[in-house]
Amino acid sequence: MINKRGCPYGTHRVIEPKGTLPQAAKKIDNTMEIYTNEILIDVKTLNVDSASFTQIKESCNKDIECMKKTILSIVNERGKLQNPVTGSGGMLIGIVEEIGSDLKTDLKVGDKIATLVSLSLTPLKIDEILNIKIDADQVDIKGKAILFETGIYAKLPDDIPEKLALAVLDVAGAPAQVNKLVKEGMTVAIIGAGGKSGLLCCYQAMKNVGSSGRVIAIEYSQENAEKVKKLNLAHDVIVTDATKPVEVYNEFLKVTGGKLADVTINNVNVPTTEMSSILITKDEGIIYFFSMATSFTRAALGAEGVGKDVTMIIGNGYTKGHAELSLNILRESKEIRKLFEEKYC
Amino acid sequence: MINKRGCPYGTHRVIEPKGTLPQAAKKIDNTMEIYTNEILIDVKTLNVDSASFTQIKESCNKDIECMKKTILSIVNERGKLQNPVTGSGGMLIGIVEEIGSDLKTDLKVGDKIATLVSLSLTPLKIDEILNIKIDADQVDIKGKAILFETGIYAKLPDDIPEKLALAVLDVAGAPAQVNKLVKEGMTVAIIGAGGKSGLLCCYQAMKNVGSSGRVIAIEYSQENAEKVKKLNLAHDVIVTDATKPVEVYNEFLKVTGGKLADVTINNVNVPTTEMSSILITKDEGIIYFFSMATSFTRAALGAEGVGKDVTMIIGNGYTKGHAELSLNILRESKEIRKLFEEKYC
Repeated sequence: MINKRGCPYGTHRVIEPKGTLPQAAKKIDNTMEIYTNEILIDVKTLNVDSASFTQIKESCNKDIECMKKTILSIVNERGKLQNPVTGSGGMLIGIVEEIGSDLKTDLKVGDKIATLVSLSLTPLKIDEILNIKIDADQVDIKGKAILFETGIYAKLPDDIPEKLALAVLDVAGAPAQVNKLVKEGMTVAIIGAGGKSGLLCCYQAMKNVGSSGRVIAIEYSQENAEKVKKLNLAHDVIVTDATKPVEVYNEFLKVTGGKLADVTINNVNVPTTEMSSILITKDEGIIYFFSMATSFTRAALGAEGVGKDVTMIIGNGYTKGHAELSLNILRESKEIRKLFEEKYC
Repeated sequence: MINKRGCPYGTHRVIEPKGTLPQAAKKIDNTMEIYTNEILIDVKTLNVDSASFTQIKESCNKDIECMKKTILSIVNERGKLQNPVTGSGGMLIGIVEEIGSDLKTDLKVGDKIATLVSLSLTPLKIDEILNIKIDADQVDIKGKAILFETGIYAKLPDDIPEKLALAVLDVAGAPAQVNKLVKEGMTVAIIGAGGKSGLLCCYQAMKNVGSSGRVIAIEYSQENAEKVKKLNLAHDVIVTDATKPVEVYNEFLKVTGGKLADVTINNVNVPTTEMSSILITKDEGIIYFFSMATSFTRAALGAEGVGKDVTMIIGNGYTKGHAELSLNILRESKEIRKLFEEKYC
């Protein structure tokens, strides 16, 4: 161990350009000797971000040896697996090997964890690539990685298969934010209710509103809408296109008898669904945008354009206790677990 | 008056494409007979959005006759002054001529108002263009406009010159949101403190935090920083580049003795200042992004990347009472009024 505390954000490992954070850096120091506030991980598997993995796969015409070479050369050059074309990373699974003496953590050496910070900022050294699972965007390796003091992670549980846990951890922020915002008796709209993140949000919202509240699921696909209905994850399900605000607004009012939503959660991964979210939310209500397709200006100008006094929140994938909360949904709901097992295992 | 109530959002005036809101529409109905929930305005001046005005000016090589023709042809074609290239509008000043019988409003016929909804969604008919003030982005006209039920406006006060009032109304949402978020004793960071919106936010924050709180202004330009200091609008002023998160973070900790902000207000109109905002805000703190240069994904992924449990809010230019609150700042602070008069009158 280096007898020094690093910056909590990892800037002490930035080689160039100086003054940037590790994610924005071109090259970071991947010396596998930890500072007193870092954690050393014995890496088993890299879950490469889908955009990055696809780019590497296509540039190599699916040739495994070429993909191995590409991955090794990125990590050798940058000290991290940040795809230079897509800018994205992924996450990793490994075993805790050493814990810095200055860290307060619930981890023990030997714990199996998934890092929840991006590989695009994680110091990584690969000794050998053992296997590439080309249909799962996964790379099994021999190697090590470093977690900074602010790096977030989840202990992988014994009672949930690894892939299932990862699929849920990937969107853990969404149901956890729902849990923070949704109170008893509220009217809650979940747009994009039938996807992975939407189903978890519906479950949490139904739990929080209690018997006096109401959860309205809005979903584009008839098939996904059926899932929501079958699993009883909403009081009402509207099948409609969230890019059509006037339609969504009219359907919503019909279902609620003229009431607007206290809280609206947007999980739709297509652009231009901001206005629907704004129209169905009441004055002084809250809209939580989880979709990466959200446009800041469309939301800001949209609310002003219709004189809507709503609080619009940028989805933060991290909030305290989010991993535990989302894994618990799998423990509480056999139906969701079964559905996710069919899809992600 | 047409003896019918229109949609509060004005969709009853959309000609094409059907099913869209007036802002997204290609053409809206600008018949100057009002529905029972609309207001008819006798328009005096159009304050054209700067992007739109510049585009028209440049495409006409500053020829006034050409500019007149362009503006008339846009309004004839679309029923509203929405620049087809920039998509933007502006606002207007006029006199209330008729008020729909179904409306509850504090307005009277004869009141002078500024509309605070965009011209990109406001039905407008121009009889004649009287004058184009080429350096002020203003167009004096004879004509009429319609305000929908949800359309927001401000009565223009007698005690504040029109241009000064408009300059402040343009950013009225910012200090009003500060007033909602900032409580006594808080540590507040205002990034981009020396601009128009920043100064108003500083004033409101100083008022709200009281003697036990602290306002820290962050400003790029030395000249603007001096203004903040001279007017006593912050306890500390940091002159630094908000696109450099590590620098901002270190300077901030130095000034506060290691404390992070409870609330951070970002008013900077250049890209990539999200990370600075995130780093200087404490866990469970709030960041309010007012800048249209904010990137939704940079903010969302940035907070997750450093494991920061902050609430990030998309700036909403409208909140109840925002016009009155911001105009009152000019009444309360002679210094800010003087500064703004020099700049905007």
